[in-house]
Amino acid sequence: DLPAWQCQSGRLVRTLTFRNFADALDFVNRVGKLAEEANHHPDILLHNWNQVTLTLWTHDAGGLTLLDVNLAHKIDAVAS
Amino acid sequence: DLPAWQCQSGRLVRTLTFRNFADALDFVNRVGKLAEEANHHPDILLHNWNQVTLTLWTHDAGGLTLLDVNLAHKIDAVAS
Repeated sequence: DLPAWQCQSGRLVRTLTFRNFADALDFVNRVGKLAEEANHHPDILLHNWNQVTLTLWTHDAGGLTLLDVNLAHKIDAVAS
Repeated sequence: DLPAWQCQSGRLVRTLTFRNFADALDFVNRVGKLAEEANHHPDILLHNWNQVTLTLWTHDAGGLTLLDVNLAHKIDAVAS
């Protein structure tokens, strides 16, 4: 169950808003660490100064897999 | 003169490819530091595992200003 994520075109998408650019960049680095640990790398867009949009899918599978769901849960844990 | 940048829809866009995700993320942090110093923040997309696409424009002006050109030059300096 991933209520914070939307399924768009077969990808999991979540946008988060932070207090400022520094906090948004810090979150990008936290997600980067999780991505490296999982060897599964989302697209990460830092935009509008204080927002981060994450897009998860499994390129090799052409869609979503357990890799995406697991990483989404880990991202939710560091985001909360 | 900014040969590495393309002008798209009134915005300066540059995509860079790195050896791996860690190098791409390191570059994102370098750009973040420059953005904070300039108090001018591009959109930063970390995608395809090892690529970073930067989009520069001045929201308040509705287009490009000297802020964008100056930041593009500083980014080029840390990218080379």
